[in-house]
Amino acid sequence: MSDNSRTHESPLQKTAITPATHTTPPARFSHGVRKGNLLQVAGQVGFLPAVDGQAPTPAGPTLREQTLQTFANVKAILEEGGSSWEDVIMTRVYLTDTAHFAEFNEIYNEYFAGLKEAPSARTTVYVGLPAGLLIEIDALAVLG
Amino acid sequence: MSDNSRTHESPLQKTAITPATHTTPPARFSHGVRKGNLLQVAGQVGFLPAVDGQAPTPAGPTLREQTLQTFANVKAILEEGGSSWEDVIMTRVYLTDTAHFAEFNEIYNEYFAGLKEAPSARTTVYVGLPAGLLIEIDALAVLG
Amino acid sequence: MSDNSRTHESPLQKTAITPATHTTPPARFSHGVRKGNLLQVAGQVGFLPAVDGQAPTPAGPTLREQTLQTFANVKAILEEGGSSWEDVIMTRVYLTDTAHFAEFNEIYNEYFAGLKEAPSARTTVYVGLPAGLLIEIDALAVLG
Repeated sequence: MSDNSRTHESPLQKTAITPATHTTPPARFSHGVRKGNLLQVAGQVGFLPAVDGQAPTPAGPTLREQTLQTFANVKAILEEGGSSWEDVIMTRVYLTDTAHFAEFNEIYNEYFAGLKEAPSARTTVYVGLPAGLLIEIDALAVLG
Repeated sequence: MSDNSRTHESPLQKTAITPATHTTPPARFSHGVRKGNLLQVAGQVGFLPAVDGQAPTPAGPTLREQTLQTFANVKAILEEGGSSWEDVIMTRVYLTDTAHFAEFNEIYNEYFAGLKEAPSARTTVYVGLPAGLLIEIDALAVLG
Repeated sequence: MSDNSRTHESPLQKTAITPATHTTPPARFSHGVRKGNLLQVAGQVGFLPAVDGQAPTPAGPTLREQTLQTFANVKAILEEGGSSWEDVIMTRVYLTDTAHFAEFNEIYNEYFAGLKEAPSARTTVYVGLPAGLLIEIDALAVLG
């Protein structure tokens, strides 16, 4: 931003991004935040769109179901924030089992086949997640 | 920054942030770094303020003690760098046990109850940490 | 950037960074991406420079061999993107065994002994990695 935009009169806006389809975060964090030209998407899992009065429910037990739903959840936040996968510079992938890597990459390649811009960088590591969840993804986008 | 600030005459400053209360990093990294309008806080754990001649000591064995000390350690770095939790866009939380999630969220919500800006995005995953440590947190802030 | 550079006429470029020495990513992601003044390096492991027709091969079985090769792989991406370790504000280190921490820090300190700018922030956590790999590192640089 220009030096002028750094004055107290026009500070950068910090905006929470909360798609209507998303379940309420389980704590005081935002599903996405935009400040300046950065948009950070919080760790998303494969929960289906929120239904009032129901606990968050994974899209299914399989890696494919959960991965595609997780991608959709990240995408919804990017789009609610005026962005898209095209702007993402880093995708962090948390899997629970190294045996899922090959299948995950297949799903990843299918999903991003139509990407026009340079693909995002990516880190994939294997961690623990709450019971029933096989994947979590967060993303950092640079807009503009 | 303006295009003028990109010339060789006025490059962005890269500044290490080292609160006096912090234990010396165990290797050649900085507890925090500011460059341009980004402030990155390194992974903090629940160590008490440094005491000369003593090894780093966790605030206590419980999740609550360690979490509150970890928050304090992140906050000290943010403030030493001219920032605060209000500027944070991403908080990465590393826990060691999925059974801690509910209690961690309670502590998180209490701690951030007074936040004025949009809450940061957050990713929580479960990893291994050195013996005795239950939590590690890092944070990225956008200033201005 | 100035507000003028935010117009549709001059959007920020998003550029994939692919050093010739690197093995092809196992999926549709980039080893590095630059957009605006941010350069994100994808998670790198200790694979030797690519050889046509050969599967990716770690530099060796030891932590030291894999760490030095991983540093070299990150460095190659930073340099291909017009940057260097001097610009890095965050280094994320994924080890597989807490018993490696002390030796890793020794190697880290040797490697970064000549750094002129403030050292990067760092987070180190212990995760699962594909069989045979002891370390993975990614990095975020702010150029300018």
